[in-house]
Amino acid sequence: MMNNKSATLIDGKRISDEYKKGLKVEIEQWMSKGNRAPCLKAILVGEDPASRTYVTKKMEASAMVGIDSETINLPSSISQEELMEKIVVLNQDKQVDGILVQLPLPKHIDERTICNTVDVDKDVDGFHITNIGKLALNMDTFIPCTVLAVLELIKCCNIETKGKTALICGRSKNIGLPLSMILHSDYRNELPGLEATTIMCHRNTPASELMRYAPTADILISATGVVGLIKPEMVKPGAVVIDVGLTRVQMADGKTKLVGDVEFEGASKVAGYITPVPGGVGPMTVAMLMKNTFKAAKHLAQ
Amino acid sequence: MMNNKSATLIDGKRISDEYKKGLKVEIEQWMSKGNRAPCLKAILVGEDPASRTYVTKKMEASAMVGIDSETINLPSSISQEELMEKIVVLNQDKQVDGILVQLPLPKHIDERTICNTVDVDKDVDGFHITNIGKLALNMDTFIPCTVLAVLELIKCCNIETKGKTALICGRSKNIGLPLSMILHSDYRNELPGLEATTIMCHRNTPASELMRYAPTADILISATGVVGLIKPEMVKPGAVVIDVGLTRVQMADGKTKLVGDVEFEGASKVAGYITPVPGGVGPMTVAMLMKNTFKAAKHLAQ
Repeated sequence: MMNNKSATLIDGKRISDEYKKGLKVEIEQWMSKGNRAPCLKAILVGEDPASRTYVTKKMEASAMVGIDSETINLPSSISQEELMEKIVVLNQDKQVDGILVQLPLPKHIDERTICNTVDVDKDVDGFHITNIGKLALNMDTFIPCTVLAVLELIKCCNIETKGKTALICGRSKNIGLPLSMILHSDYRNELPGLEATTIMCHRNTPASELMRYAPTADILISATGVVGLIKPEMVKPGAVVIDVGLTRVQMADGKTKLVGDVEFEGASKVAGYITPVPGGVGPMTVAMLMKNTFKAAKHLAQ
Repeated sequence: MMNNKSATLIDGKRISDEYKKGLKVEIEQWMSKGNRAPCLKAILVGEDPASRTYVTKKMEASAMVGIDSETINLPSSISQEELMEKIVVLNQDKQVDGILVQLPLPKHIDERTICNTVDVDKDVDGFHITNIGKLALNMDTFIPCTVLAVLELIKCCNIETKGKTALICGRSKNIGLPLSMILHSDYRNELPGLEATTIMCHRNTPASELMRYAPTADILISATGVVGLIKPEMVKPGAVVIDVGLTRVQMADGKTKLVGDVEFEGASKVAGYITPVPGGVGPMTVAMLMKNTFKAAKHLAQ
C-alpha cells in the first residue's frame, strides 16, 4: 500500500502568510467603517530568550495585519499580585481587545490563577477556565491558537473528517485535550466539531499500542516534544500528518536546529499530507492569534 | 480466546448500598462534631414521569444516608426568569448545600443558562461551565454523578488502568466527554486521571471501525441508548464492560422493560467484569449524588 510519490507539503509559512493578507484586508474594511485598529497587549515576564522570540513574532505579525500591539516587559521578580494588578488594568482598558501572558511564568507565580485573571472576552489565548468550559461544550469561544492552527491546516487538506479516525499523541491541556474535543464533536454546534473517531495517546500508552493504533489513523497529530516518536511505519498511507512538536536539538557540528515529533523524511513518503518543522504549525499559530485578536475586537466593539 | 466461564457481575445495586452505608456513618460522625445534616434541594419542573421517578430515588437515597432533602415541584409553565430566581434564592440560602435541577427542562427554558445559574459550590450535578472547565483541567470539582459512578465501578474491579485502553461509545457532554477526559489524564493531578489510552466513538463512527477498535479495549463503556450496540464479538476476553445505556423497550407481551446498550447474555460470556441493566450504573449514580452533596456540605461548612 506504500505509494512512491511524496506527500503534499502543508506549507504553514505560505498558508499563514496568505491568511494574514486576507485578515489585513478584513481589518482595513472594518476600520473603514469607523472602528479603531484592534489592539493586542502581550505581557512578557522575565528574560527567557525563547519566550522573547515568540512574543517578537507575534508583534511582527500584528504589524503586518494592522493590529496595534505592545509588549509589556516585566521583571521575573514581579509578585503574583502585582502581575494580576497589571492584567486588571488591561481588562478595564476599553482600548485593549486582546491580552496574552506569555507562558511559562516564573515558579513563584501560579499560571492557572493568572490565566483566570485575564478577562474572558480578551482571552485571545483561550486559557481562561470559562473559555475551556465553553470549548468542552462546543460553545463559541476563543480556541487556543495552536489548536486553531492545526484545525486550519487540516481544513487546507480539504479532506472529509466525518467518520474518519484521528489519533492525537500528547494530552496537554492547551493542545492535545482541546484538539481531541473538537475532533470528535458533532458538527451541529455553535463551535462545529469534526465528527472524527478520536484516539488519545500519551506517555503511558505502550509503544506496542501506539504502533497498533497509529497506522489506523486518517489524521495523525503529534504534540509531545518527543523527537522521532512518529516513524514512517506508523503512518497510514495517504494520511494527514500534523507535527506540533518543536524541539531544539544539537547537531554533530555543534549547531542546533528545530525538529518535530515526526521522522519527516520517511513519513513524507507514506503520508498524503504532512507539515514540516519548522514552517508548519508554528507560523500558523501566530496567524491564529491575529484571528483571535480581531475576533475579540469585533466582539468588544458591539 | 473465548473463555467459558461467565464474567464477574458488577452488582451496582449491592455496591451502591454498601457505599451509602459507609456514607451514612461518615455523615453521622461529621454531624457529631456539631455540623447540621447536609441539605439537598431538587427542582422538578413539570410532570415527566421518568424525571419524577429519578427524583424520588434521589430523595429516598438522601433519607437513607442522613441527608435532608426536598423536591421543589414547579409547573412546566414557569418562565426561565422565574426558575432562575428560585435557584438564586437557594444559592443564597446558607442552609442549602446541594442544588440539582432535574433535566430535561421544558423547551422554552435554556438548560445551559439554568445549569450556569446554580452556584458553582452547590452544583452537585457538575453541570456548571466552571466545573466543566475545572474537570477538563483535572482540578478538584464536582464530577457529574454518572461519570463518578462509572469510575467507582471500574475501581471495584480492582484492575490497573494505566497504559490500558478504554473505549467510550457516546460523546455526550455529561457522560462520554468527561469520562474520556478523566480516563486519559495523568494521575498526578488534583483530580487524578486513570492514565488509559482512550478511544472516543460516536454516531458517526462507522460500524466497521467500532468493530475494529472495540475488541482492543480493556475497558469498554457504552453510553448511547442504542439497544444491542455492543455485541459479544466486540468484547475483548476479560475486558471490563460498563453499560450506561438505559432504554425502555416494549416486549412481545406488551409489557416494557429497561435494557442497556450491551447484549448482556453473550457479552457476559466474554468479558471479565460486566454491569447489568438495570442494577448497574443507575443505582451507583444516585449514590454518587449523595457523595457530591456531602462534599458540598463539607466545603460550605469550612
